Amino acid sequence: MTQVLRGNIIQAPRLGELDIREHGYLVLKDGVVQGVYDALPQALASAPITDYGDRLIMQSFVDMHLHAPQYPMLGMGMDLPLLDWLNTYTFRTEARFADPDFARRTYRRLASDLITNGTTRVCMFSSLHTEATWILMEELERAGVTGYVGKVNMDRNALPGILQETTEESVSETLRWLDGCHFEHVRPIITPRFTPSCSNELMAALGRIARDRGLYVQSHLSENRGEIAWVKELHPDCAQYWETYDKYGLWKDHTVMAHCVHSDARECAAIRRAGVVVAHCAGSNINLCSGVSPVREMLRQGIWVTLGSDIAGGAQLPMYKVITMSIRASKVKRMETDWSEDFLTVPEGYYLGTTAGHRYFGGGEGFAVGQPLHAIVVDDGDFPEPVRPLTVRERFERSLYMLHRHNITAVWSHGRQVK
Amino acid sequence: MTQVLRGNIIQAPRLGELDIREHGYLVLKDGVVQGVYDALPQALASAPITDYGDRLIMQSFVDMHLHAPQYPMLGMGMDLPLLDWLNTYTFRTEARFADPDFARRTYRRLASDLITNGTTRVCMFSSLHTEATWILMEELERAGVTGYVGKVNMDRNALPGILQETTEESVSETLRWLDGCHFEHVRPIITPRFTPSCSNELMAALGRIARDRGLYVQSHLSENRGEIAWVKELHPDCAQYWETYDKYGLWKDHTVMAHCVHSDARECAAIRRAGVVVAHCAGSNINLCSGVSPVREMLRQGIWVTLGSDIAGGAQLPMYKVITMSIRASKVKRMETDWSEDFLTVPEGYYLGTTAGHRYFGGGEGFAVGQPLHAIVVDDGDFPEPVRPLTVRERFERSLYMLHRHNITAVWSHGRQVK
Repeated sequence: MTQVLRGNIIQAPRLGELDIREHGYLVLKDGVVQGVYDALPQALASAPITDYGDRLIMQSFVDMHLHAPQYPMLGMGMDLPLLDWLNTYTFRTEARFADPDFARRTYRRLASDLITNGTTRVCMFSSLHTEATWILMEELERAGVTGYVGKVNMDRNALPGILQETTEESVSETLRWLDGCHFEHVRPIITPRFTPSCSNELMAALGRIARDRGLYVQSHLSENRGEIAWVKELHPDCAQYWETYDKYGLWKDHTVMAHCVHSDARECAAIRRAGVVVAHCAGSNINLCSGVSPVREMLRQGIWVTLGSDIAGGAQLPMYKVITMSIRASKVKRMETDWSEDFLTVPEGYYLGTTAGHRYFGGGEGFAVGQPLHAIVVDDGDFPEPVRPLTVRERFERSLYMLHRHNITAVWSHGRQVK
Repeated sequence: MTQVLRGNIIQAPRLGELDIREHGYLVLKDGVVQGVYDALPQALASAPITDYGDRLIMQSFVDMHLHAPQYPMLGMGMDLPLLDWLNTYTFRTEARFADPDFARRTYRRLASDLITNGTTRVCMFSSLHTEATWILMEELERAGVTGYVGKVNMDRNALPGILQETTEESVSETLRWLDGCHFEHVRPIITPRFTPSCSNELMAALGRIARDRGLYVQSHLSENRGEIAWVKELHPDCAQYWETYDKYGLWKDHTVMAHCVHSDARECAAIRRAGVVVAHCAGSNINLCSGVSPVREMLRQGIWVTLGSDIAGGAQLPMYKVITMSIRASKVKRMETDWSEDFLTVPEGYYLGTTAGHRYFGGGEGFAVGQPLHAIVVDDGDFPEPVRPLTVRERFERSLYMLHRHNITAVWSHGRQVK
């Protein structure tokens, strides 16, 4: 079925570039993009048109790092030091997901909040609970969120008896979980929480599972200095943190590593060489005093950088807020470097929160032909009256700073309208 | 008329301290606070009660620095360097307020947005237009926003013919404006934009007017290094920026100085000595790459620090967002100082955005007896379900990170319910 969407179309095909079509046309066939046009091709003159008028049709957002079972503690514990935050708050929150009913309620809410805020693709941590992880995947699928979800693995340094597995349990539950994953748009990803949470034996087993089943991997890397020193103690044979993943076959193309705040030139080179994807989580890194990631330097080196809300180290689920926080963090970095480093512009931040993430899931650059549509429609009609008519580009920039979910009037995910 | 409000009452009487009364009672007489109680005093048993149930009754917010005529450009121009931002964007936006109809529409909207977001006291810049400034004061008064508004003075380095006055006009219009200010809760404040915008003659005249009429003063200080160097060029006889205000009688008790990002020990000593009030604008300072103010150090020195949204250098009007951004900025400062400086805790940030500001207008510490009520009522019922029942303190902390104006179900300003 051919469908035409009409409106002000904005896409970020490449870092720092915007492609804007004022009152343009986006043509779909069975939800798959056929093209973006300034004027409607003659052959489509009789196709049904959804006219969004003066609204903005933008790419939807991608959240490349968040912890679903931390959603209940959003905005809480922000005054605690990292280890207290993790041990007394976070782990106890995640432990609650042994209860499938609680998981169902929370994950239904989370999935709905993602869609209403325009996030249609995610790379997400669950807890270590197999049932709750299936429930999470089911609720995402139902709401229209697509992407990857990982059952978390942790067999040490957590809360024994409350939130910790034996090595055997962790491996066998991972296999049981994988065998039970039959979702259309939500797929499994191997998820060692981070090196301190996983014994060498577990890491090795996860590396084998990822290889044998052809699965991607996600974890954490170089978030803060204390963690880096701890990893060094646990793996004295590894010169750097990333090598603890590499040793077990977990450091490979499409491995997503959250944070990378303190990755130096050597670690960055290893990231680029392996095709590892960085999930930059600016808000979380500031909330937890982890540091400010050298994103501009990473981009210059050709590293694949994406953005994550890092719920609940981050306190903001909407990716438009994560984008503007990333821009702010890059300005902090600019000041730190005595203005030698450029900040992220609004189009650059938008690219990182959209196209850079969509590519992880096989999406193309912007509204690429042949791709199922991932888009949001923005009504900025209730923003303060400007002093003169604004260009579409100005409206786009203002929207990123001012959006609230009520301004997102339609959401398309994998070719289907889900809001 | 005696009135009793019942709910979970939270006040920040002193920096870092919270006074919390679960299901407590706040007693008013004609809108003036008579006391806050854990249990209702016997004598009031028959007084009419407004029962807010399990909601939070909190102090309302105070915005100590914002530019009303920049509201139309909220969230725009964030990629521009400061001088371009000011000269091509900001001044042209402010120039539009020569039109009273546009001013009326914009200021009615701004006043409403302040109240719905729980800001009941402001210290605000208007533009240089006398009529528009009266309109602003009228609209604030009508909506229930109280505080100070200043007609801006600028007789140099702006946009001649578009947004600039002669020295004579600036003085005579200021006097005409003052003579026409007859508002009950919104009062005038003398407002030289900043030293580069005002000739020495104008500064001297404004100093005399402030003295003769017993008026407070507001302006900008040490926002960024370029500006500081410029001021030094303009006033080679002044060792520091603040002395350019002091020279003309503008540096005195209750003078509000926005920013003070680069104020060193000597300038800080002058601030404290004179009783000058700092309006810290964390979001704006990051957006414009101005720097991160040493707020903790200022507090340690006993400087009176308050918070400002600095619309539209700041992109967020709600003071709960300004508070959490101030907390984030303090965490950046902590990292910058190699963790030697403590960050602002949530109760500290809340104090700066409430009591520290209310005191400027004669308010007391927290819900002080004898003061007209400034309060908000928060319904956090639609936040994600927590894993266990939360304490009121936890709910308070979470609210500051998660509030949206729809969660603010009632607002009291100067003893009147205005939302």
